[in-house]
Amino acid sequence: MAQAVELPRNEEGIATALGILKQQFGDRFHTGQAMRDQHAHTTTYIKPQAPDAVVFPTSTKEVSDIIKVCAIHHVPVIGYGTGTSLEGHVNAPAGGICVDLSTMDKILSVNADDLDCVVQPGVTREQLNTYLRDRGLFFPIDPGANASLGGMASTRASGTNAVRYGTMKDNVIALEAVMADGRVIRTAQRAKKTSAGYDLTRLLVGSEGTLGLITEVTLKLQGIPEAIRAARMSFPSIDAACQAVMTTIQYGIPVARIELMDELNVRAANAYAGLDLPETPLLLLEFHGSDNAVVEQAEMFGAIAEDAGGFDFATTGTAEERNKLWKARHDLYWATLQLRPGAHGISTDVCVPISRLAEAVTGAQAKAAALGLLAPIVGHVGDGNFHSLVLIDLSDADEVARAEEFTAYLADEAIAMEGTCTGEHGIGQGKMPYLVKELGAAVEFMAAIKDAFDPLGIMNPGKIFKR
Amino acid sequence: MAQAVELPRNEEGIATALGILKQQFGDRFHTGQAMRDQHAHTTTYIKPQAPDAVVFPTSTKEVSDIIKVCAIHHVPVIGYGTGTSLEGHVNAPAGGICVDLSTMDKILSVNADDLDCVVQPGVTREQLNTYLRDRGLFFPIDPGANASLGGMASTRASGTNAVRYGTMKDNVIALEAVMADGRVIRTAQRAKKTSAGYDLTRLLVGSEGTLGLITEVTLKLQGIPEAIRAARMSFPSIDAACQAVMTTIQYGIPVARIELMDELNVRAANAYAGLDLPETPLLLLEFHGSDNAVVEQAEMFGAIAEDAGGFDFATTGTAEERNKLWKARHDLYWATLQLRPGAHGISTDVCVPISRLAEAVTGAQAKAAALGLLAPIVGHVGDGNFHSLVLIDLSDADEVARAEEFTAYLADEAIAMEGTCTGEHGIGQGKMPYLVKELGAAVEFMAAIKDAFDPLGIMNPGKIFKR
Repeated sequence: MAQAVELPRNEEGIATALGILKQQFGDRFHTGQAMRDQHAHTTTYIKPQAPDAVVFPTSTKEVSDIIKVCAIHHVPVIGYGTGTSLEGHVNAPAGGICVDLSTMDKILSVNADDLDCVVQPGVTREQLNTYLRDRGLFFPIDPGANASLGGMASTRASGTNAVRYGTMKDNVIALEAVMADGRVIRTAQRAKKTSAGYDLTRLLVGSEGTLGLITEVTLKLQGIPEAIRAARMSFPSIDAACQAVMTTIQYGIPVARIELMDELNVRAANAYAGLDLPETPLLLLEFHGSDNAVVEQAEMFGAIAEDAGGFDFATTGTAEERNKLWKARHDLYWATLQLRPGAHGISTDVCVPISRLAEAVTGAQAKAAALGLLAPIVGHVGDGNFHSLVLIDLSDADEVARAEEFTAYLADEAIAMEGTCTGEHGIGQGKMPYLVKELGAAVEFMAAIKDAFDPLGIMNPGKIFKR
Repeated sequence: MAQAVELPRNEEGIATALGILKQQFGDRFHTGQAMRDQHAHTTTYIKPQAPDAVVFPTSTKEVSDIIKVCAIHHVPVIGYGTGTSLEGHVNAPAGGICVDLSTMDKILSVNADDLDCVVQPGVTREQLNTYLRDRGLFFPIDPGANASLGGMASTRASGTNAVRYGTMKDNVIALEAVMADGRVIRTAQRAKKTSAGYDLTRLLVGSEGTLGLITEVTLKLQGIPEAIRAARMSFPSIDAACQAVMTTIQYGIPVARIELMDELNVRAANAYAGLDLPETPLLLLEFHGSDNAVVEQAEMFGAIAEDAGGFDFATTGTAEERNKLWKARHDLYWATLQLRPGAHGISTDVCVPISRLAEAVTGAQAKAAALGLLAPIVGHVGDGNFHSLVLIDLSDADEVARAEEFTAYLADEAIAMEGTCTGEHGIGQGKMPYLVKELGAAVEFMAAIKDAFDPLGIMNPGKIFKR
């Protein structure tokens, strides 16, 4: 396990806050080891750091009460959604109180005429979409995991269909948040656009709980498209697949998803799901629109991809066939793990300008091979974003060191290509050094905001910056 | 003329800075009254407040040099693009140095494969689009005026086709800026998405020069669509027109523009351009896409609008006919002024959830009538954003007072409808009181950022907040 960021603990303050909050929250306040450990569970290879207690508030007022107690006694506050973040975001390096927002899970309003809704932060995306289905609406952002919408806002999540619908930054209209002194703010009204002052909405989106805790999210919604069409195409090389992606995007074909699986991933999918796909790079696509539009789009993609050397084109409009076509992608995490049973999968994340994508992916493949690592690559390639799931034995220090060398290489290369060390996972504890490499003096201004909003440094300390 | 915000002047500091900058910039440094007055020209009815000098830098380094001198001597720095902002943004209430960025007008790079470009802040949108045309690309944001891209970023501008392409917040990928102490930062890399730290890009977009001066803008570009189709439809009432807009948006028809002109505006257009449009509310639309898609979209809109009571539907795909169809909109500003020759036109701006649009527009019409004002309304209605051009005699104090009552009414009503006091013009000096009404305690956090980034208060003082 890699070391986490370490910070000093304020034992006296923590003890006092624990006593007060126990009093206030009764059986919604937990200090048992199992509960604490569960809330430090992290999907990275960063060592878990459990909080001292976990509390389950049910209202903005209660979140504010908790933060006020923590502010008085200088005790860390760590927001928690579903625990699916990937860079040690929910670790408690200085101890403190984990605020589990999963019990704030009400859908407060759906404004169908305005294509928006207001939800509490603990509502998950699947819960919201189930609720919306009968209204003919959906919320498009899909990071894979059934994350909470507050958590997705906090990490600026995106995923497979960001290429069409944008990321959380584009789909959050307004936030209510409790700030580090317990004050409650609303960052914007419900209008679709605004020029009223600084964009605090976008500032809180992606701030990883370091500036305040999100207690309400106003989200843009979409009408469920009249038609959805899927497509799949194999390519002789990563270069050819990336060329097809670039041309598709340049032609303005409004793909809803365009996912790349490298040859290693395709092999894993074949073995896991009994498929017989050519074991070469694969693109999977989805198109949303009118019946005519999606057929036209799929045909245009097919022609572009064939020009780029693609083969074995398949496309379909029925839901059942769509699921078959995309099967290789749906089970990918589990399929990939079976490439090395018993191994731990570490998910890394970088994003580069799309013109550099082929070079970045083939570079990553070569580096993994040179380090003797099994590290299949999957990408939300319409945005130039890709992940590698590095399969390692966490008890093997040498392998862990090589995995760290690999993720460092990916981040450095992405930055050198005018890309970013993280397209959608966030900085957390894992990417701190790369943030400074990537943005230099700008990080000092981020830290200035942190210090201005949270002078005591109680909001999710040790994330984004070491403070 | 309405009073502008007044702030105390630092005479000694200003005198010293003037001396140093004169030395450094020679004939690119101006203190002549005409030049100063020209840079305080404002299209609002707020009294102009001229700076003490105007300087024309040609590089980021020079902008940094200017700001360093101003920081040492506590002298205000006011950024200037083309002077087309509308809320007194370029006024100098405490005097100081106007930094005219129009001489930083180079297009630094166009990355066609990545659909982005990097420009200096003084590049105007028409200049950029002329440059891009041969490459098959365009930059979609169109606020009407031929504004500079740095200025458009600073005010979070948008305009007619934001409904399809978003606002400046959605189209700026990264910024270079000189901050209040002269430090130069880059807010992001060139990747299409990122989760790397706080979103300083979106913080600077719309900060109206109060946090730093933008010296480079990285922008998203679009491929010129295969086909553009225009449409026009008249409606018996504002209600009917707004119903058609709402349904069109709900159906997910990707309109590129959808503009509402009220009956007064249509009458003005008929008179000015010799048209014979029915003098009832009018919607003008544009569709971008493939040949088939735009025809399908226009037909779908036509059917929806007819259901809502629309009549006299016209649609065309040729450039020449398109210009005829949209003629009423193109000349609107000049046509409207002719409703009352010699009058001054004050452009106001609010944005409401689209479900409240009909109520907001008819409310505004009724209020204007009650106040005896001529105030035709035009709206980028796909976003719920509309403007009124109030036609007044600026020398008539009573009329000015009634115009102020009208704009206050619009802002208050918009806020009461969960909308905003400004959809795209910004706060400047004109909308300060409404910002606080709209966002309450959130404004204290905006001010905390201002104080942290600009502790001396030299960056465009007296805008957004009174500091």
